[in-house]
Amino acid sequence: MTAGIERPVWTRKHLLTINELSREEILFLLDTAESFKEVSTRSVKKVPALRGRVVVLMFFEDSTRTRMSFELAAQRLSADAIDFAEKVSSTKKGETLLDTARNIEAMGVDIMVLRHPAAGAAEHLARAVNCCVVNAGDGQHAHPTQALLDLFTIREHKGRIEGLNVAIVGDILHSRVARSDIRGLQKLGARVTLVGPPTLVSRDFEAMGARVTHDFESILPEMDVISMLRIQKERMTASGFPSVREYVHFYGMNRERLRRCRPDVLIMHPGPVNRGIELAADVADGPSSSILRQVTNGLAVRMAVLFLCQQAAAGGEHAP
Amino acid sequence: MTAGIERPVWTRKHLLTINELSREEILFLLDTAESFKEVSTRSVKKVPALRGRVVVLMFFEDSTRTRMSFELAAQRLSADAIDFAEKVSSTKKGETLLDTARNIEAMGVDIMVLRHPAAGAAEHLARAVNCCVVNAGDGQHAHPTQALLDLFTIREHKGRIEGLNVAIVGDILHSRVARSDIRGLQKLGARVTLVGPPTLVSRDFEAMGARVTHDFESILPEMDVISMLRIQKERMTASGFPSVREYVHFYGMNRERLRRCRPDVLIMHPGPVNRGIELAADVADGPSSSILRQVTNGLAVRMAVLFLCQQAAAGGEHAP
Amino acid sequence: MTAGIERPVWTRKHLLTINELSREEILFLLDTAESFKEVSTRSVKKVPALRGRVVVLMFFEDSTRTRMSFELAAQRLSADAIDFAEKVSSTKKGETLLDTARNIEAMGVDIMVLRHPAAGAAEHLARAVNCCVVNAGDGQHAHPTQALLDLFTIREHKGRIEGLNVAIVGDILHSRVARSDIRGLQKLGARVTLVGPPTLVSRDFEAMGARVTHDFESILPEMDVISMLRIQKERMTASGFPSVREYVHFYGMNRERLRRCRPDVLIMHPGPVNRGIELAADVADGPSSSILRQVTNGLAVRMAVLFLCQQAAAGGEHAP
Repeated sequence: MTAGIERPVWTRKHLLTINELSREEILFLLDTAESFKEVSTRSVKKVPALRGRVVVLMFFEDSTRTRMSFELAAQRLSADAIDFAEKVSSTKKGETLLDTARNIEAMGVDIMVLRHPAAGAAEHLARAVNCCVVNAGDGQHAHPTQALLDLFTIREHKGRIEGLNVAIVGDILHSRVARSDIRGLQKLGARVTLVGPPTLVSRDFEAMGARVTHDFESILPEMDVISMLRIQKERMTASGFPSVREYVHFYGMNRERLRRCRPDVLIMHPGPVNRGIELAADVADGPSSSILRQVTNGLAVRMAVLFLCQQAAAGGEHAP
Repeated sequence: MTAGIERPVWTRKHLLTINELSREEILFLLDTAESFKEVSTRSVKKVPALRGRVVVLMFFEDSTRTRMSFELAAQRLSADAIDFAEKVSSTKKGETLLDTARNIEAMGVDIMVLRHPAAGAAEHLARAVNCCVVNAGDGQHAHPTQALLDLFTIREHKGRIEGLNVAIVGDILHSRVARSDIRGLQKLGARVTLVGPPTLVSRDFEAMGARVTHDFESILPEMDVISMLRIQKERMTASGFPSVREYVHFYGMNRERLRRCRPDVLIMHPGPVNRGIELAADVADGPSSSILRQVTNGLAVRMAVLFLCQQAAAGGEHAP
Repeated sequence: MTAGIERPVWTRKHLLTINELSREEILFLLDTAESFKEVSTRSVKKVPALRGRVVVLMFFEDSTRTRMSFELAAQRLSADAIDFAEKVSSTKKGETLLDTARNIEAMGVDIMVLRHPAAGAAEHLARAVNCCVVNAGDGQHAHPTQALLDLFTIREHKGRIEGLNVAIVGDILHSRVARSDIRGLQKLGARVTLVGPPTLVSRDFEAMGARVTHDFESILPEMDVISMLRIQKERMTASGFPSVREYVHFYGMNRERLRRCRPDVLIMHPGPVNRGIELAADVADGPSSSILRQVTNGLAVRMAVLFLCQQAAAGGEHAP
């Protein structure tokens, strides 16, 4: 996709996966997020960009952080955020997701933010409704705003993404964060290394263009960025998963490993951290860690996503 | 009740049942809703009518749709909506509904929207508090805003209600929607036919002035409007209730039955639909169905209800 | 702490316990609350004092009233209130309270209102974050806004607190309300008498400077204010707790006991009342009872707390 003088860079009313975005679209979104990040530092943390617009948060999986981040992003744009509380919803009464969504849309909603356990749910929804759909995580498939905030954070720290060596460590197999990060990083020219036990990081991932290794130690000195995935404790008992002790031994980030990294290495984690598992507490809280900055940037990125999709739907202007 | 130049048409600060409303009051409310419906089509979906007012949503029964509809209606009027989350409420600590309500009122609330499993709960509440009370469904007794949105939708499609033949099909016995619809339709001059198995639609309903029949087929050709009630699956195992298969066979609306109706028949359903039970999927999604328009109109009607009741309580003017 | 012309009276960005407040700070806060109480009587119940500020409600214990009171207080100051819904939070995923809080803070939150079952949780939190922390009840330790609203209500009714005889009746041992009330009342010069069965009101409380008695009858005629604590029914079966019948007999407030009090006695209760246990229904609803006024005043006091803490954090001016 090429932007001309007449053609705006961002024309999407949905954000479904990072795959569908061009390098140019990603950079445009990150630039927009940068201008929104400043809003959160003001005492009056508000811009009127989406005043009178309605954002509905449809979270069919628990996720306090992501839900709060989107809710605060909507508020900061002066939109009205409304919660679709699944626990008391009519999906329990045998209604399908699409029926539910069409009903919500009929109430005059502008943007649906969907978190759903089924891969492809957001795309499915986007085909059924006329309002904007933002994917806040669908099964093990995609989590595009997480990838965008990770890219934002890397660019903020390193000044660029092109040419960087980035490792993603952990349960790649079941991670939508990993899938979205890999695609986003590759589109912006980073070299991605996937690290973890063979059962969770098989050689098959090489087909995605990533390097695969099971030896965390060996790659430490070359990395500019190391992103530690969250371990799902509920999966630890499943076959293919090592014991926690074994996992920490081979794939946990700790002070000793950090010493073997470049001095300016950036240690990332999508949160919430299992302290002492993926990350030793002193590394999580140390100067190399960008965990809290990822959270802060997540809000700016989500403001940009809500704003740009809504603008594209309205057919209007794109500058914030 | 007759409106003069001095006397405003709407003087009620509560909306408890459709029964208490005069024909004139209903029409005035529908006209007000019509002017509010336009607001929902704007890009900035807001009017300042209830700015600084507080609407508390007291839902003691699950109902995502109705709760969302009221919450969005409140937001669109610029009121602050606040959720009284029953699951964590002090009613669990042995407090009565009235104590709870008086406490909430003491916090300076303007309107209480109550959904409660006990018939008469809203009326009970209205006698105990000074703020406005809107009944959002009380047991099997009444659901006046559902009736009003049904009337609004019929009038919108047919241009009138007077003289129309309207069938209500299903579990009339346990339905607050049916009770409220019957009264509302009769007040505006429609002829109501109740349809369903004898155990759910007994001849006793003739005392309400409605025609009762157990033969759905026979009445299809005469109807202008057919409203299909939602089947409560949890009641299906109760005695008196036919099997689902039998119910669908005799009382489900499908393509064949639709073909026997007038070409301009309006098929209504309060939602959420059990697809393949009350309505075949192609009928639910077809051009005769007004399901989604009922949802859209529900919001406009609820804006009118909140606005008019609050205006009456404040003793102010009525024009939106 | 002495206020000079240069030094503002209120310089705290956290409200953790009543203990830490000076007499002067308490009086300044009550005066500020008085000016906010007027706002709640307007038709547009809003002041722009905290516009664009974010208040996050972190309630790890159920408390509809206190949560609603803080949420309405935030709305009335034009702040954005956001709910941290514990039931779906990442604290379930093994995250600690402080990690959760640091993450929420990274989203640009201004004030955290914390209700937590662990004594000291609010203080713990205040040391970890840079934003304001307001204690909305921590274990059996403290509930400072309840104490402040009780002081506000007593002052409003009696014109003063200095020199008053105030009884607190019930389960002093397990009550954070009692602990906070005792300290607040003493700071403002009231004489506090603690009343209840020996297992719940031991002589040890005399060390706090309060009088202890197990004979409710004997002290009735001298009291200006009698505050009845809520009985936790779940504790009633524990050893040390009398039967409900016995409790009501010795420590319930009823018409007969009220007759033995001063005519202008003020009967208080933090709510929700167990009618027929702590208070007979006719006393709860009678002219001596200040229960609903306590609720109304709670909102004004919480507006003052949010406003003053935020102002102190921003380093700005203090007049409302």
